[in-house]
Amino acid sequence: MGRMSSATLPQVPAAAGVYPITVRWSDMDAYAHVNNVQYLRFFEEARVYAFKDWFGQDRDLIDEGMLVVSQAIDYLVPMEYAYAPARVAVWCTGNGAASFDLGYAVAGPEGDDTVYARGRVTLVAYDLAGQRPRRLGDAEREALARVSGPAPRLRGDREAARREGAHA
Amino acid sequence: MGRMSSATLPQVPAAAGVYPITVRWSDMDAYAHVNNVQYLRFFEEARVYAFKDWFGQDRDLIDEGMLVVSQAIDYLVPMEYAYAPARVAVWCTGNGAASFDLGYAVAGPEGDDTVYARGRVTLVAYDLAGQRPRRLGDAEREALARVSGPAPRLRGDREAARREGAHA
Amino acid sequence: MGRMSSATLPQVPAAAGVYPITVRWSDMDAYAHVNNVQYLRFFEEARVYAFKDWFGQDRDLIDEGMLVVSQAIDYLVPMEYAYAPARVAVWCTGNGAASFDLGYAVAGPEGDDTVYARGRVTLVAYDLAGQRPRRLGDAEREALARVSGPAPRLRGDREAARREGAHA
Amino acid sequence: MGRMSSATLPQVPAAAGVYPITVRWSDMDAYAHVNNVQYLRFFEEARVYAFKDWFGQDRDLIDEGMLVVSQAIDYLVPMEYAYAPARVAVWCTGNGAASFDLGYAVAGPEGDDTVYARGRVTLVAYDLAGQRPRRLGDAEREALARVSGPAPRLRGDREAARREGAHA
Repeated sequence: MGRMSSATLPQVPAAAGVYPITVRWSDMDAYAHVNNVQYLRFFEEARVYAFKDWFGQDRDLIDEGMLVVSQAIDYLVPMEYAYAPARVAVWCTGNGAASFDLGYAVAGPEGDDTVYARGRVTLVAYDLAGQRPRRLGDAEREALARVSGPAPRLRGDREAARREGAHA
Repeated sequence: MGRMSSATLPQVPAAAGVYPITVRWSDMDAYAHVNNVQYLRFFEEARVYAFKDWFGQDRDLIDEGMLVVSQAIDYLVPMEYAYAPARVAVWCTGNGAASFDLGYAVAGPEGDDTVYARGRVTLVAYDLAGQRPRRLGDAEREALARVSGPAPRLRGDREAARREGAHA
Repeated sequence: MGRMSSATLPQVPAAAGVYPITVRWSDMDAYAHVNNVQYLRFFEEARVYAFKDWFGQDRDLIDEGMLVVSQAIDYLVPMEYAYAPARVAVWCTGNGAASFDLGYAVAGPEGDDTVYARGRVTLVAYDLAGQRPRRLGDAEREALARVSGPAPRLRGDREAARREGAHA
Repeated sequence: MGRMSSATLPQVPAAAGVYPITVRWSDMDAYAHVNNVQYLRFFEEARVYAFKDWFGQDRDLIDEGMLVVSQAIDYLVPMEYAYAPARVAVWCTGNGAASFDLGYAVAGPEGDDTVYARGRVTLVAYDLAGQRPRRLGDAEREALARVSGPAPRLRGDREAARREGAHA
């Protein structure tokens, strides 16, 4: 699954991996648009390909597993079915000792640079045998540093920030 | 689909509808846990039942459609497959002229009050014929007011709030 | 998941287990009918519940796994979405040393005795550790005998039989 | 979605369209193999691309819709997840006035000519406006004739043929 260029996609950092992700006919729901939940499936698919690119020589993350601890998404434009694959950009927006954050953008097929959705996910590196989080290794941290960029700014986050301000 | 009690579920307002949502064997992924994306599917299912309860006599929202504009979720505990349905609580956490926010909590089957995930979604009432957002009607706003409670506080939101603070 | 009565369902043997299977809103496709592939998902769900009932005290089949080797389905009437669960009947139509056949019928919710689809599946009992088929145990054969009935007659089979006749 | 060659795939007629169909990580089930139901999803995907190729200039079938009336599948080898797309062959095995039959074979990615599954489906051309079957047009029949080959021989069919013989 070759990487594509992020050059024309708005607010997608150059370091992002851009993967062609096939939209299935069955991803449409009864409204005949791509169903909102399936975008998270596209994120998952892009992540699978990105991890192979990023950690291919040091597959700790894939072999030992990881847990999704949080995700968020903004839907910008309803997506129609297309025969050509959508393009999903994925990049790292930060990391801690055992966790890291990814940003996503879902664009149309080549020639359609509309950004249909933006999102983020937080993952924890996991020791499947020991059933507990584990520290990221040096090779993993370096791989993530190479694909780093700014976090996408989500509408939902801005509103949550207002609420959090009220709690502070 | 009868409503269940929210009495024992932590941080779920009493006004929430609590719906039994069947977890399918196929909701598990290759790690043999319930897949993270499927929780959003459970949210969708709970919303379908809740809208029938809330707007049953004045079905504008269902008949005219609505768009999901944003959602977010925190995963708290990995969920194992169970034969008995999970319980998904859903309630309104606020509304604007054309949009409203829902909070969710996913608990285990009766007898397992673990909260496995919490989330939120923002929806826009939509005029399918005119292909544009439409104002919520009085009956809709009153129905939402009856099931209102505080927004769930999500980890991801708190971190986003920190980032937003840095932008402010 | 309680068993329901098969009394009113045409061509479903009395020995069949009848399980309420929730149809999800997302099981509809862009034609706003229940998607044809999802019926096989309903079969899988009914099988999971039936195996718990049939083999609950002697869980060899579930613990050791099994493989689906063949399945077939006739679609009789397009199914609309309903809030109440569909009823899926499942029964045994025969077995060999290591394999067995199940018949299925998908009916509407209580009060709707339409049979929307009929199907069959052949499964092989599998030794996951040894990675090979294994013989059915006595308890398994007895459990299957208690839920046995005639195979559903499928349109596709009748046409295939004509073709097979031409090959003979 | 370019057509690929069927030259190396056993029992796949040369006239078949062979489409690269992405297997998603989520197509695996809790046994960490590609789930049996998802193969029917791959059939659906291949059909969508094939219909575009076959009927692209005379899109009656796609625009007016069609109904799946029957399908059957044999699973030959359990499929592991692979990053490269599977190849799904699809061809016509016969037609009537309003219906037609397709055969399928699911092979591995380029370089893996294992046939993992074989199947068939019967479809009825449908007049969505009039809500009834409709006759195939000349252009449709000619398009189908160009991609015709022998029906796959399925294990389940042979056993059903034996049963049908007993009924005769």
